[in-house]
Amino acid sequence: MVRILVIAATLAAGISFTSYAQTTPTASVAVKPASTQGPVFPKGNRAPATNFTGTVYVYSLVKDEPTFNCASSNVTFEPGARSNWHSHPAGQILMVTDGLGYYQEEGQPVRLLHKGEVVKAQPNVKHWHGASPKQAMTHIALNVNTEKGIVTWLNPVTDKEYNSYR
Amino acid sequence: MVRILVIAATLAAGISFTSYAQTTPTASVAVKPASTQGPVFPKGNRAPATNFTGTVYVYSLVKDEPTFNCASSNVTFEPGARSNWHSHPAGQILMVTDGLGYYQEEGQPVRLLHKGEVVKAQPNVKHWHGASPKQAMTHIALNVNTEKGIVTWLNPVTDKEYNSYR
Repeated sequence: MVRILVIAATLAAGISFTSYAQTTPTASVAVKPASTQGPVFPKGNRAPATNFTGTVYVYSLVKDEPTFNCASSNVTFEPGARSNWHSHPAGQILMVTDGLGYYQEEGQPVRLLHKGEVVKAQPNVKHWHGASPKQAMTHIALNVNTEKGIVTWLNPVTDKEYNSYR
Repeated sequence: MVRILVIAATLAAGISFTSYAQTTPTASVAVKPASTQGPVFPKGNRAPATNFTGTVYVYSLVKDEPTFNCASSNVTFEPGARSNWHSHPAGQILMVTDGLGYYQEEGQPVRLLHKGEVVKAQPNVKHWHGASPKQAMTHIALNVNTEKGIVTWLNPVTDKEYNSYR
């Protein structure tokens, strides 16, 4: 009449699961506080198809006005999605907050963008940014010195250009 | 009679744990991909005690230089920690990326800062920011138009001021 066994397993990431067979099944899952989970900012609305390929969401963080001369948005690119080629008269700063993305400046190879990276696109440098093919990417896009202008939109990024990452 | 059980545990980026005991109770814990967990930016180094009360970490995101006229840091306040009173000649933008914080402008009551909020401190408005008493707070601090200057540090926030939140 042997009964019983005990399982005690501690899994990474602070998750613990304890099960007592037969009599008292108990599960205890410790998770981080809600505030540390999920995206930092709302996804926002679909970006205009004229300036992007694929599914892109934009949520405005800072509206441009003359005291701060600053415009900022949280931008989420679904896998495969990307901006058109474009440039900024005063440059642009990208702060990657999630996922894995692509970034390319004209004449340079496509490079990866990782969560936590900060990239500066210098004034008038043609570039594009987006998600990698299988993973979404979210970044804060930051335009400063907007009295000089914000953005000049150019051609879409072709599939050949997008798939040139090696 | 011996009964039996089987444990099959798969630990990976997505952690799942399955236990079969007697009647097959099953627990499945789905965790988000690693990239969406944990803080976005590194914590950085301890902030100077001269300008802060309590434990504060600062990680530089953007170093000030004349092309962008922009300085930005990721700042983490442990519970109870806060900046001194201060002001910015060109104002400051805060983007709260985690936790629950406090923010006060001179002559106004202390208000809560939640994850996802964006706050503008107007030029030369005396203010302070920090964590709430029992929960840490992390924000991106963004100074633009830095050709006008960055910050004027003032007195520490007293316990009476800090505890005035209602």
